[in-house]
Amino acid sequence: MLTHIRYDSAGLITAIAQHHATREVLMLAWMNHEALQETLTTGRLCYYSRSRQKLWRKGEISGQIQYLVEARLDCDGDALLFLVDPTGVACHTVRRSCFYRALTPKGLITLTQPEKTRTNFIRILLPLKNVF
Amino acid sequence: MLTHIRYDSAGLITAIAQHHATREVLMLAWMNHEALQETLTTGRLCYYSRSRQKLWRKGEISGQIQYLVEARLDCDGDALLFLVDPTGVACHTVRRSCFYRALTPKGLITLTQPEKTRTNFIRILLPLKNVF
Repeated sequence: MLTHIRYDSAGLITAIAQHHATREVLMLAWMNHEALQETLTTGRLCYYSRSRQKLWRKGEISGQIQYLVEARLDCDGDALLFLVDPTGVACHTVRRSCFYRALTPKGLITLTQPEKTRTNFIRILLPLKNVF
Repeated sequence: MLTHIRYDSAGLITAIAQHHATREVLMLAWMNHEALQETLTTGRLCYYSRSRQKLWRKGEISGQIQYLVEARLDCDGDALLFLVDPTGVACHTVRRSCFYRALTPKGLITLTQPEKTRTNFIRILLPLKNVF
C-alpha cells in the first residue's frame, strides 16, 4: 500500500490535518516514510520537522496530540489528508488552526484569537505573579 | 501583504483548496508568486503546474473553475488555504475531491466514485455509439 506513495526528492510528502468533526483544516506539515508508518501504526500523528530534521510527534512536548481517524491519499499519490481528533489546539500560537490569517485587499487580517486553554492561562498569568 | 509569504527554494508554496460550504478538502497544489497574484486579483484559482512548469488556470481546459471565497495564510507563512466555490469536480478522475482513497490496514480503499457529470457521461457513452 505504501508503495503508492510518491515522496519528493527529499523523501518527504505533504500532510494536511483536518478536524474529523468540524472539518476545519488545522495545519499543513510534512512526513517521511518513517513518520507515516509511525502514524498508521500508533494512531497518533507523527510528522517530520524540516527545520529540526527529525520526527515530530505532535503533542510530545505541547500535549496537543492528534489522534488519527482516517488517512487519505490523493489521486497522484503525492499528498496526504488526515482526519484527526485533536486533544487541543494545532498551532503554536495556541489557536485551533494554523490558518488563522486571511489575505484581504486591506492586508492580512487575524480571524481567530488564541484559545483560553489552561496552558495559555498559565502563560499569560505567570508574569503577573510578581505584580501582586 | 504578500511579503509575509515564504516561498520555498523553487519559488513555490503549497495551496490547499477546500469547499467553502461543505468544508471538504478538494485538492493540494502549488503556487508561485504570479499564480497567487492572479488568484487574488481575478477571484479564480490559478495554480502553478510543477510538471508542466507553467501557470495552471483551474478550469481553463476542463471547465471546472474554482471561484475564490477566502484566502488564508498559515502561522509560519509557508502554506495557503483557499476556501473555494467550485463549478464542478476538483479531480481529473471526475471526483469531487482528489483525496478519494483511504489508507487502511487492508490496503488502499476507494471512498468515492466519479461524479455523473455531463462531461463524464459523454466520456462513458461515446465509445458505445458504435455498439448500437
